[in-house]
Amino acid sequence: MAIIVQKYGGTSVGSLSRIEAVAENIITTVRQGHQVVVVLSAMAGETNRLLAMARQLDATPASRELDMLLSSGEQVSISLLAIALVQRGISAISLLAHQVGIQTDNRFGAARIQSIDTKRLTQALSQEQVIVVAGFQGQDVEHNVTTLGRGGSDTSAVALAVALKAAEAQIFTDVDGVYSADPRIVEKAQRIASLSFDEMLVMASLGAKVLQNRAVEYAFRHQMPIRVLSSFSQGEGTLVLPKSQALAESQSNNPVSSVVHDQQQALICLTDVADNAVSSIFDCLEKANVELDMVQLVGESSLAKQLLFTLNRDKLEYARNALQEITMFNKFGTIRSRESVAKISAVGIGLNSHTKVVGKIVALLASAEIDIELISTSEISCSVVIDETNLVQAAQILHSGFGLDSSN
Amino acid sequence: MAIIVQKYGGTSVGSLSRIEAVAENIITTVRQGHQVVVVLSAMAGETNRLLAMARQLDATPASRELDMLLSSGEQVSISLLAIALVQRGISAISLLAHQVGIQTDNRFGAARIQSIDTKRLTQALSQEQVIVVAGFQGQDVEHNVTTLGRGGSDTSAVALAVALKAAEAQIFTDVDGVYSADPRIVEKAQRIASLSFDEMLVMASLGAKVLQNRAVEYAFRHQMPIRVLSSFSQGEGTLVLPKSQALAESQSNNPVSSVVHDQQQALICLTDVADNAVSSIFDCLEKANVELDMVQLVGESSLAKQLLFTLNRDKLEYARNALQEITMFNKFGTIRSRESVAKISAVGIGLNSHTKVVGKIVALLASAEIDIELISTSEISCSVVIDETNLVQAAQILHSGFGLDSSN
Repeated sequence: MAIIVQKYGGTSVGSLSRIEAVAENIITTVRQGHQVVVVLSAMAGETNRLLAMARQLDATPASRELDMLLSSGEQVSISLLAIALVQRGISAISLLAHQVGIQTDNRFGAARIQSIDTKRLTQALSQEQVIVVAGFQGQDVEHNVTTLGRGGSDTSAVALAVALKAAEAQIFTDVDGVYSADPRIVEKAQRIASLSFDEMLVMASLGAKVLQNRAVEYAFRHQMPIRVLSSFSQGEGTLVLPKSQALAESQSNNPVSSVVHDQQQALICLTDVADNAVSSIFDCLEKANVELDMVQLVGESSLAKQLLFTLNRDKLEYARNALQEITMFNKFGTIRSRESVAKISAVGIGLNSHTKVVGKIVALLASAEIDIELISTSEISCSVVIDETNLVQAAQILHSGFGLDSSN
Repeated sequence: MAIIVQKYGGTSVGSLSRIEAVAENIITTVRQGHQVVVVLSAMAGETNRLLAMARQLDATPASRELDMLLSSGEQVSISLLAIALVQRGISAISLLAHQVGIQTDNRFGAARIQSIDTKRLTQALSQEQVIVVAGFQGQDVEHNVTTLGRGGSDTSAVALAVALKAAEAQIFTDVDGVYSADPRIVEKAQRIASLSFDEMLVMASLGAKVLQNRAVEYAFRHQMPIRVLSSFSQGEGTLVLPKSQALAESQSNNPVSSVVHDQQQALICLTDVADNAVSSIFDCLEKANVELDMVQLVGESSLAKQLLFTLNRDKLEYARNALQEITMFNKFGTIRSRESVAKISAVGIGLNSHTKVVGKIVALLASAEIDIELISTSEISCSVVIDETNLVQAAQILHSGFGLDSSN
């Protein structure tokens, strides 16, 4: 018998019949002999509905009050689930953050969990109750309601699992695990049985949206395994583990575990950039709230290099305008920008011991005559920027080239 | 400068534009130099929407969880109002029952307020904040969310007014005060400027639905004035006061202050009832959950009296069935029942020193040839049961006969 924390997202509790399905799922886990703590998001659409009302009253609603408002969504879902469980003869209790004692700082809308008082939780567990906790919310030292930011329920679940020394935090979502590539563009993508926190974090930063990053970081720091599961189908899901365990679990020597893409990229290329102009160019972009992604400075002359960087496509206009404003200072020669580029990355904990991977990526893409605009490597990933029109082909070539294709 | 508690009901905050109107109303009170504590109900329709969801999951939802669910409605309205106030440059803060420290017993769905910790409230008031408190809710000693029952927000407002030693509790609703009769049937009914708690309680028990009875009782016990006001129009409303103050405020010597009616009555008449059979008849009705209203036992023989009583019309069938079941025990002769009777009452604190009032009621109705089925008097009221078809005429005759008609 182990303590299992199960988190169900908004679509998983999006209707009364979905809530009943979740109740059945929990009962199955209880029947397996586990003690279950459930964390819920608000019913799908509810947070947006509340937010829209607040914004009709004030375009920038008071942040403390907005947290008070939004946290009501989870209160509805947890009490409905508890009602459904009790109706099925299961002893269940719903608890809000303040009742659990989920203490956070007071950054409304983006609060961080500081501590969890497990007294009431362990008391309820000892009475064999299923506990249904409101995700996404906490309270600060003055008992104000706080929220953890979008997707914060994942973090609530991981933090509760850590506090209760649970066996694992199970994140139920609408996909049945983490995939070796986005199945929408790589048909032969397959579910990854297990991977490391490091890979999960890098995959998320490179464009794979499965778990909230902060939740993975929290689990990483406390070495709490996360399992990604579908609430719509049966299966083992994907287990996210500490690196040592992930390496031990892995059945292959494949240095690459997944191919991740980000379609929302744009590229800017500045010519004739002097070394001592780079920092003022970056300052100017920072002031315009433009975050740079990949950056490359090429050329031999310290007075006339080529500066290439990628950024989120939504920010391209802001970046161009900001750069236009400083042309008079002769920080660079010409601007060239491309709106339709994509980033494609190979990720794997085996990557850093296999420098050959970079060469292989270049070779694989060259064989299909796909031009690489930019290349960048980190400890466990290698990313290239290509034209968006080549994205699907490139993803399939890399996925196949690194032996990730499923056999069926 | 005084502390004013203002309570706004569901229709008063039924839409975003209504919430904005309430914000403006509060600002007017603040500009008058008052410290304002606001108590809100859930937006109109919300409690019913939540209840319907719960009942789809379980016809009799777990009471603790139902309270958790329903209390979310007030959380939404208070945070939206606080957002609207802050948007208008007013320092405002919304607070839930557990944040205020509204302690109740643990009768879920019908909890009673036991104490209020004013620490946070006085702190916020000293910072010149408008406080927006969730009505209808409390917490028990184990920090479970409780609710006070339908209309409980009135009680929340009165209890807060008492705890804060406020000048008065203002109950904003969709009528502009308490009327001398229901204006829908007595055209010349007029707003009563002030009346006593006693009158208000009796009026409510006789069918006038303006304030929640428990709220009036609470105010009565603590001698806290309540003012009934419209949130849709300006005006002085009706002030509900201790008897001595009400008598001092009253500008007339009229023993009757209002005419109240209850259209939902039915009448049962049993013949040949022996004195010693009465208690078993009442026991049988109690077991069937039938509450009796007016009761009369007439006749001289101790073996064959006539037992007349009124009851809520919805319960007539239950009562008839229950009585049918005991016919075999010869507790009575025949049953006669009438479904379409109405109760009409004259209420006033001057009534008990004017026994002539009863005679006047009989004479007024007799002059219009309206038969009286039953008559009953209490300290400050006199009620008669008549045929429902005569209700409007009787109400107008009594209202006029006791000099209550408005001159315009």
